[in-house]
Amino acid sequence: MDGNGMAQLASFRNDYSEGAHPRLLEALAQASGEQNIGYGLDRHSLHAAELIVARCGQPQAQVHFLAGGTQTNLLAISAFLRPHEAVIAVDTGHVATHETGAIEATGHKVLVAPHVDGKLTPDGVRALLRENTSEHMVKPRLVYVSNTTELGTLYTRAELQALRALCDAHGLLFFLDGARLGSALAAAGDDLSLVDIAALTHAFYIGGTKNGALLGEALVVVEPALQTDLRYLIKQRGAMLAKGMVVGCQFEALFEGGLFVELGAHANATAQRLQSGLKAAGVPMLIDSPSNQIFPVFAHAHIEALARMTSFEHWAPYSDSQAVIRFVTSWATRPESVDALIHAVAGLVR
Amino acid sequence: MDGNGMAQLASFRNDYSEGAHPRLLEALAQASGEQNIGYGLDRHSLHAAELIVARCGQPQAQVHFLAGGTQTNLLAISAFLRPHEAVIAVDTGHVATHETGAIEATGHKVLVAPHVDGKLTPDGVRALLRENTSEHMVKPRLVYVSNTTELGTLYTRAELQALRALCDAHGLLFFLDGARLGSALAAAGDDLSLVDIAALTHAFYIGGTKNGALLGEALVVVEPALQTDLRYLIKQRGAMLAKGMVVGCQFEALFEGGLFVELGAHANATAQRLQSGLKAAGVPMLIDSPSNQIFPVFAHAHIEALARMTSFEHWAPYSDSQAVIRFVTSWATRPESVDALIHAVAGLVR
Amino acid sequence: MDGNGMAQLASFRNDYSEGAHPRLLEALAQASGEQNIGYGLDRHSLHAAELIVARCGQPQAQVHFLAGGTQTNLLAISAFLRPHEAVIAVDTGHVATHETGAIEATGHKVLVAPHVDGKLTPDGVRALLRENTSEHMVKPRLVYVSNTTELGTLYTRAELQALRALCDAHGLLFFLDGARLGSALAAAGDDLSLVDIAALTHAFYIGGTKNGALLGEALVVVEPALQTDLRYLIKQRGAMLAKGMVVGCQFEALFEGGLFVELGAHANATAQRLQSGLKAAGVPMLIDSPSNQIFPVFAHAHIEALARMTSFEHWAPYSDSQAVIRFVTSWATRPESVDALIHAVAGLVR
Amino acid sequence: MDGNGMAQLASFRNDYSEGAHPRLLEALAQASGEQNIGYGLDRHSLHAAELIVARCGQPQAQVHFLAGGTQTNLLAISAFLRPHEAVIAVDTGHVATHETGAIEATGHKVLVAPHVDGKLTPDGVRALLRENTSEHMVKPRLVYVSNTTELGTLYTRAELQALRALCDAHGLLFFLDGARLGSALAAAGDDLSLVDIAALTHAFYIGGTKNGALLGEALVVVEPALQTDLRYLIKQRGAMLAKGMVVGCQFEALFEGGLFVELGAHANATAQRLQSGLKAAGVPMLIDSPSNQIFPVFAHAHIEALARMTSFEHWAPYSDSQAVIRFVTSWATRPESVDALIHAVAGLVR
Repeated sequence: MDGNGMAQLASFRNDYSEGAHPRLLEALAQASGEQNIGYGLDRHSLHAAELIVARCGQPQAQVHFLAGGTQTNLLAISAFLRPHEAVIAVDTGHVATHETGAIEATGHKVLVAPHVDGKLTPDGVRALLRENTSEHMVKPRLVYVSNTTELGTLYTRAELQALRALCDAHGLLFFLDGARLGSALAAAGDDLSLVDIAALTHAFYIGGTKNGALLGEALVVVEPALQTDLRYLIKQRGAMLAKGMVVGCQFEALFEGGLFVELGAHANATAQRLQSGLKAAGVPMLIDSPSNQIFPVFAHAHIEALARMTSFEHWAPYSDSQAVIRFVTSWATRPESVDALIHAVAGLVR
Repeated sequence: MDGNGMAQLASFRNDYSEGAHPRLLEALAQASGEQNIGYGLDRHSLHAAELIVARCGQPQAQVHFLAGGTQTNLLAISAFLRPHEAVIAVDTGHVATHETGAIEATGHKVLVAPHVDGKLTPDGVRALLRENTSEHMVKPRLVYVSNTTELGTLYTRAELQALRALCDAHGLLFFLDGARLGSALAAAGDDLSLVDIAALTHAFYIGGTKNGALLGEALVVVEPALQTDLRYLIKQRGAMLAKGMVVGCQFEALFEGGLFVELGAHANATAQRLQSGLKAAGVPMLIDSPSNQIFPVFAHAHIEALARMTSFEHWAPYSDSQAVIRFVTSWATRPESVDALIHAVAGLVR
Repeated sequence: MDGNGMAQLASFRNDYSEGAHPRLLEALAQASGEQNIGYGLDRHSLHAAELIVARCGQPQAQVHFLAGGTQTNLLAISAFLRPHEAVIAVDTGHVATHETGAIEATGHKVLVAPHVDGKLTPDGVRALLRENTSEHMVKPRLVYVSNTTELGTLYTRAELQALRALCDAHGLLFFLDGARLGSALAAAGDDLSLVDIAALTHAFYIGGTKNGALLGEALVVVEPALQTDLRYLIKQRGAMLAKGMVVGCQFEALFEGGLFVELGAHANATAQRLQSGLKAAGVPMLIDSPSNQIFPVFAHAHIEALARMTSFEHWAPYSDSQAVIRFVTSWATRPESVDALIHAVAGLVR
Repeated sequence: MDGNGMAQLASFRNDYSEGAHPRLLEALAQASGEQNIGYGLDRHSLHAAELIVARCGQPQAQVHFLAGGTQTNLLAISAFLRPHEAVIAVDTGHVATHETGAIEATGHKVLVAPHVDGKLTPDGVRALLRENTSEHMVKPRLVYVSNTTELGTLYTRAELQALRALCDAHGLLFFLDGARLGSALAAAGDDLSLVDIAALTHAFYIGGTKNGALLGEALVVVEPALQTDLRYLIKQRGAMLAKGMVVGCQFEALFEGGLFVELGAHANATAQRLQSGLKAAGVPMLIDSPSNQIFPVFAHAHIEALARMTSFEHWAPYSDSQAVIRFVTSWATRPESVDALIHAVAGLVR
């Protein structure tokens, strides 16, 4: 339910409606009874970092635990760039559209290329490199992608390799926003592992907030040249939690075993169940998403009716009479809730 | 214990070694099972804000929940000031010394006045106003104090009234950092209530992190002219938690009854027990602190011995042979831990 | 000549190749022998400001003299906006493309709308207002136009009125970049006077650098609410000249009589002579420009040949075999130089 | 005269009351009749840079011409530092007190040490290094000095060597503000040449504004690691003049022969004449200045009387009945003006 008392169905608005998975809550309760060193230097944070480094296969990588995605993006990007250097992202990129200009607030322009199924292409990067060639323009320096993308799609290994090769050819840094990396790694058709992502990027982050944690993202800085003094910058941006173990022990729980991918798999499975069910009911999709976000197309009247039953994002106009909405599932979404939504939609559109 | 396995005594390093009070953990577990609207608009955050507003007696006040103290200071100060406007603080002020230049990183100079027992005085403010008088200097615009101060001392009502009167006379904003407000409100000798603080400041914050929460500060913006568009700025600074209920439901638990002040009282009581015990053992204090931070003076050799038994902050040199250290207690400090420390110190200094 | 010794013709690269008009040099020599108060408070700056205010018909307007266009844009925009507020400009706008991210470096995003003949349209503004509606996006707050535009075109009075009406309806500020306002005011077909521009904008600037001065722009802040403390901000940005009279006495010379418009008229006349001559020689134009910038289309081979004879900007691709270049004239361009260029082109393209 | 019509004597307020030396005005007039490439790439700027590099004896040095001192300081410092890095300066330093927080506006804290005769000492630097040791504090990274200092004093070679050695030992950059370097190099007792200064600093600037130019400072970046992409940053800060030759040809005139030092010598000679004359009249000095700024001590009543005759800065209180004022001479100060002032003072204080 989403606050206004009108929804009889669960909310499908996003993957951060519910709190933390029980195992993370247990870890927090356990650690709450201990005394830990502050500011992310506690044993849980150090252990979680070790687990992640091991999983990434890059022993020299540095891990920093932060509170949220926008914070992580702005921290990393402003730490990595000099004042005149700019970000390259797709026009639908989170840093380009949904972070209230957080990157610009740190002084850096975000140059945008048109997306293809939510993804950045080498051609898009090349066009921006061709346009920005003198000191009267910003200097493109960091390529930003997110996986999954804002449209729920996945990068393939070949796609990331092509982007990284282009970065290497032009002295660009490659940064991957993994707010929904759990869903990406667990998706059918994914051919990228954490090892691949760590090998192909200079830095990336692993999202906890949208994958079963109360809050928290793990910034992995693979490239040693980018690691200097990051804790100063984290403190300066107000991003260093006094009780750093709060994020550390949640990531410890996510990465001690396979929980991180399991939760992503659960979210994906419920979204795919919903996508199949809606298609079976005759609802077209904007895009065939393999992850935990799906984009059905409905007539305006049906959208209004749905809005009285559940909660979701209005995504984009589609035609004069139709629009795209977004349904998102999470680590906590119950199959029954999905089935109830399918049933309700089938009743509407029949 | 502080990581190195040598301490037989509890740590007295700070008030953020332990996690959250059990009632807050319960609230988090309970809320984790619900679906809540994101970004701080959930029912828990809204309810917690109502509780705080009611306790402050300023119905027009706005409350925003943030993750930590540095984040709250930089968010509020940069939201309230134009680029050329500066902060006035004491030289020991947290924003002046221990936030890695977070305020300057948002573009604003921090002007400092000498502290008197950790406190800012009207004379200190006046001296800075006399020095900064033209467009070739920054324009002093916001007076920053913290209560309790960095030296564990308390402002009296008369002292805040005098500072506010001076602010009014010179068009200055008055901002109070309440990272340790729980301890302040519960201290013996305190004559300030939340109602007083809300009436005397334009904005202030109530610290959760150092008073029993996993994380979280409640920024209370009393002055309507300062309230416009703050949620934009919170998002832009990376300070808006997707699962805002994480902080909201902890403040709900702290303010539904008297827990907030109870936890401060507990921290104070254990610190006072420690201060009395140390004085009885012949240990002098830098300052007579009424709150949860105390500042004993020890011979260097004793400090080395103590460092093998417990954990604390080295505060300042005192004489050629002595230095000041800081012991801090928290909502979770056990009287037995205090007694064990007193016993150990008595053994040392006898 | 343009430095490399190959050009037999004058340069047509821009309107800042030559220094200052003799009357401005005289004024500088005269004032150099005096003693003047510093920082723009000298008699020449004050007098020049009075002359401009009188010419604008807005007695409450404030005038500040600055060194260049990028400096003026970044100073004004960052002074007028709060951190989360954004600029609306056309995609060809100077602040969007040719100022090395100067606006973003002050923390503000520049939202872009597609241009129509170099101009911003109400529809373009409305589309951006529709897209940026929540605290997760920047808040559009200032509409930026330049006159003449980057394509040498002119806004009509009706166009500026429509944009201002839209601004008023949505609480937006309206700012006009007049780096080439001299050319605009002197152009055939112009129906806007300084009085109109001052009445229709909240602030604008009058360009000296591109209209006969060694350097200098006059920022006119019409709206009283935007005038507070601007001198602090000018100093803070490094934009306050110690010898402020250097710009002040040049503007005094430009506005004591009609010199400012005369110089614009001269630049326009030579550009129009060139445009007519080229058209007569069969050269097509990208756009029919009424001002001192013209945009002929040439075959690539002709462009290469021209580059050996004179100096100009490569503007944009046009077709597989053709491209657009830009010729610019100035207050100092001699008709004979124009005729020589026409002659050379005619020889090439015949 | 200082605007109010009351002064019968010349102004001694500063060294930027007069415009440019006639040879610089001639150079400007000459260059105004040419066509030059824009943005500082013209032949005059290139030649002036070559002259300066040759005079400095550091062939790898890069020279950039900027408009004023605050602009140069903020440009260089923000180009050289990462966001968490801070400046070390004396408490009287120009960047610390008289630039409206320009350095902080670029995000960097200025740490201050107490001055000794206006100068920074190794002990002052060491104390700040001892205090700022963790990621909770800014990281000291650049040592800023000015020569002459704000008190008109000179650094010796030994003093700069000691500071540079300390910088090298701690990985600090050494930057010298030479707004009044002309006066320094020409002062009696100076044992530093341009070659020394270039060898001892990582970057410094040579002031034109206060030594006979209309405007302009020459930033000399000696250290290659600091040279990358500076033109991007100059453009981004609004500091790149379209007609860059305006500064370039003035520096060409200053450095083609010995004019730069001659003008400094003239300013010093007139100031020394004034200092000697005042001392002979019984006026004590705050400090024995060898340069073009002197600091006499007067009774309040005499200061009031002087203020009706000439113009100067009120510097600081001295005793209950006395205060310090500042008289400054320039390249243009006439000996007769000095003698008239001495005569007037002698009449007052006799």
